[in-house]
Amino acid sequence: MPSHTDLTADHDPLHVNGRTYRMPVEPVVVLCIDGCEPDYLTQALMAGQMPQLQRLLARGTTCTVDAVMPTFTNPNNLSIVTGVPPAQHGIAGNYFLDRSTGEAVMMNEPEYLRAPTLLAAFSAAGVEVAVVTAKDKLRRLLGHGLTAGICFSAEKADQATLAHGGIDDVPAFVGLPVPDVYSAALSEFVFAAGVALLRAGKARMLYLSTTDYVQHKCAPGTPGANAFYAMLDRYLGELDALGARIALTADHGMNAKTDAAGAPQVTYLQPPLDAALGAGSARVILPITDPYVAHHGALGSFACVYLQDPAQAPDAAALLGQLPGVQMVLTQQAAADRFELPTDRIGDLIIVADRLNVLGTAPERHDLSGLDLPLRSHGGLSEQQVPLLFNRRLARLPADRRLRNFDAFELLLNHTLPA
Amino acid sequence: MPSHTDLTADHDPLHVNGRTYRMPVEPVVVLCIDGCEPDYLTQALMAGQMPQLQRLLARGTTCTVDAVMPTFTNPNNLSIVTGVPPAQHGIAGNYFLDRSTGEAVMMNEPEYLRAPTLLAAFSAAGVEVAVVTAKDKLRRLLGHGLTAGICFSAEKADQATLAHGGIDDVPAFVGLPVPDVYSAALSEFVFAAGVALLRAGKARMLYLSTTDYVQHKCAPGTPGANAFYAMLDRYLGELDALGARIALTADHGMNAKTDAAGAPQVTYLQPPLDAALGAGSARVILPITDPYVAHHGALGSFACVYLQDPAQAPDAAALLGQLPGVQMVLTQQAAADRFELPTDRIGDLIIVADRLNVLGTAPERHDLSGLDLPLRSHGGLSEQQVPLLFNRRLARLPADRRLRNFDAFELLLNHTLPA
Repeated sequence: MPSHTDLTADHDPLHVNGRTYRMPVEPVVVLCIDGCEPDYLTQALMAGQMPQLQRLLARGTTCTVDAVMPTFTNPNNLSIVTGVPPAQHGIAGNYFLDRSTGEAVMMNEPEYLRAPTLLAAFSAAGVEVAVVTAKDKLRRLLGHGLTAGICFSAEKADQATLAHGGIDDVPAFVGLPVPDVYSAALSEFVFAAGVALLRAGKARMLYLSTTDYVQHKCAPGTPGANAFYAMLDRYLGELDALGARIALTADHGMNAKTDAAGAPQVTYLQPPLDAALGAGSARVILPITDPYVAHHGALGSFACVYLQDPAQAPDAAALLGQLPGVQMVLTQQAAADRFELPTDRIGDLIIVADRLNVLGTAPERHDLSGLDLPLRSHGGLSEQQVPLLFNRRLARLPADRRLRNFDAFELLLNHTLPA
Repeated sequence: MPSHTDLTADHDPLHVNGRTYRMPVEPVVVLCIDGCEPDYLTQALMAGQMPQLQRLLARGTTCTVDAVMPTFTNPNNLSIVTGVPPAQHGIAGNYFLDRSTGEAVMMNEPEYLRAPTLLAAFSAAGVEVAVVTAKDKLRRLLGHGLTAGICFSAEKADQATLAHGGIDDVPAFVGLPVPDVYSAALSEFVFAAGVALLRAGKARMLYLSTTDYVQHKCAPGTPGANAFYAMLDRYLGELDALGARIALTADHGMNAKTDAAGAPQVTYLQPPLDAALGAGSARVILPITDPYVAHHGALGSFACVYLQDPAQAPDAAALLGQLPGVQMVLTQQAAADRFELPTDRIGDLIIVADRLNVLGTAPERHDLSGLDLPLRSHGGLSEQQVPLLFNRRLARLPADRRLRNFDAFELLLNHTLPA
């Protein structure tokens, strides 16, 4: 009798969003560690806090790859599970401006997703798929079209049912209580759930996506960061021991966004635009904004500016380019071309901040009272380089191939070598 | 009888290299902390390791300013002590190529300096000036023209004499032995010497320049870094207690230049140039190269390419721009304009690497055996933002003034307010 492995290995490959994927020959796990600047791993490894990862990389592969711009959570998670950039999947951030209504529209709902996910495609092809996210905001997007699989968030683990989520009694199944949404435990629950699902034989393709609560607070190599990565390390060891073929990547890196004394370095865009172009002529939208802002005050290194009169774009660009902390101003088309973004979901101008700077709308619109530690954030080009690690050797690839975090599934399924 | 303070305050201001400087009304100290990425201070402050700095900044001023490109030690130290960019002072790195001889020429000798230093000018005007550097390589450049002042290095503290250095028996005077050149103690000796000079009334203008031995090894907030900054903090407290008006800045920041597993991410430039243009057509010069390479393997994020035939520049630029890890390729003139560099001391092309990448010539020309820890280095735009801190309030400056690390003396003397 052929084993399960042989059955799926002989299956025809899947074609999703213009790319081809082999069927899994062993359980595959992709972990998206939110905000995982490479140095978090380097420092934790050096401190002896990640013995399992040390062991896995000795027989695996370490890459540094480019995340999707803007370096925010949703665009990158959706790229990883669709295998394509935001120009194709449509999720360019958390918010865009609906010009017809003048309303900022949140893109957290599946109706904004323009491409099917790999997860849904594999599930439809008969592979047991499971998705676990930290925050519930990502669950519906990542689980879109996943009719037969398992999909739940740690945040609302107790609300998953067989009918809605493909599984009952998650906290009991995982053996952990539902964690606080602002905690390292929220991510630990994701890892523990992944191990429990794999151990119970409930998943042959697993996507685990965490939250960057810890990374927004703790610099690489500091005690809080090392404790998080030591925790991750234990679960990596368990996933590996269960025979999983693992890829670990990130949605974005993370940098300090403060001066030496720890004060946030914020460039506010709305007041100078109002002064130069007239109040209401320009509208600043920060695509990092979401309902969970306590840890970053809705301050990231990427902003969109929408203009009433597109003819003002050159003046606005010149003005914005002179502001301190601004690294780059691109027109809509230039940004869409360079960053593979959907033109209808970004502003007339795209602003990227320097490594140690963030962009705000106006001072009165940012509540920084939740920042109990010096601001660390992301969104810019300075957070684009992220790790992509495998517990398997990667086959030789063309030297000029630019590797992306959204190649994680493709590389894992098509180009890693058996253990 | 008027105090010494009144005497110098009434003195005419000095004009040096096109800028104007008031005479010191109290002892002034500028510290250049080599490789002081702002987060080193932020993390050490957060960890409670810098109580003196915490206190000084509460009544002082914190700025983030731009260092000089390339973000290497010598160009920035020389800019700080001349008040002008390398286009004026001539020191664009450690090496340039003499096209007439084909030899790489080291710019560590004063003959390459094209502008007088503030230190020499103040000394000539009767102010007691003292300069202490960590490594001896900087001593001759910084001390150029300083006929009446004090100038010595920690590395060769025992070799200073009254005739050559303006002081005898430095180790006994400082109360510390001559430290190893590769050590945190080398920088501590600089601070201790500064305190001793100030306490002994031997300096009214003091420039202290350290080495980035610790910063090349330890990430911000990790134990080795925090120990260094705790040590610095004690001396800052002493300098402040002695009544000094203090500016603390840096020559450059510091970033990890490795993948997540700690392997250096090096893009070698000579082999692809040889393959595309013909062997010997292009020559790669790394201006970070110096006699002390053990801690960085001569790997930084900035390189010069000299071409036999300048007509090959467009082809070479296109080739280099496609290499992984390359952020930017500029022609000589574009680089000279943008970074205020002397055209005759840089290559036909200037290459800047991404934040987590460094540039090498060829693998066989870099000895990485001295890298006992994951490479951290500098040289690029990603290391341009550095702290500039004062233990005094800074007067209001024009909002559009771009502050530089080489404004340290000008701001300290002209724009800080009395305690």
